[in-house]
Amino acid sequence: MYLAKVRITLKPSVNDPQGLTIKGGLHNLGFTSVDSVRAGKYMEIKLDGTDQPHAEQQVKEMCEKLLANPIIEDFKFELEEEPGKTAT
Amino acid sequence: MYLAKVRITLKPSVNDPQGLTIKGGLHNLGFTSVDSVRAGKYMEIKLDGTDQPHAEQQVKEMCEKLLANPIIEDFKFELEEEPGKTAT
Repeated sequence: MYLAKVRITLKPSVNDPQGLTIKGGLHNLGFTSVDSVRAGKYMEIKLDGTDQPHAEQQVKEMCEKLLANPIIEDFKFELEEEPGKTAT
Repeated sequence: MYLAKVRITLKPSVNDPQGLTIKGGLHNLGFTSVDSVRAGKYMEIKLDGTDQPHAEQQVKEMCEKLLANPIIEDFKFELEEEPGKTAT
């Protein structure tokens, strides 16, 4: 059992109105030291069985095919072995 | 200049229809080893100046006041010093 922690962010060249709005809200709350905010998505995916290289390959394919839009988004993920459960 | 990488997730007891839908989509694409998906939010926040303990305190307050809903969400963040820029 593996746990993949996937972070999906807009590419740096893509405009991010959601991030700008959050930045505005933080400034209004008095957090004036905020220089920029970029908003993205986060997913935790649990995978049954399989060995680590196979799990990594699977998560990469999931990101490319469904989770991220490769035209405007980048993705990164970390894979952790879940304690207390053995891969079958 | 510090970069805070904030991950906001639903508490484990909260139902996550978005995650269930993503899991269904992944199964339909043939990724049958996916056991569960939890969807969340990710933000990268750049902070001007300030020392590290102060920046940490600020990001914690931002999460509590605006970024996360403490009733149903948990947050975690990592703080990194941005290379090439000095704190003023």
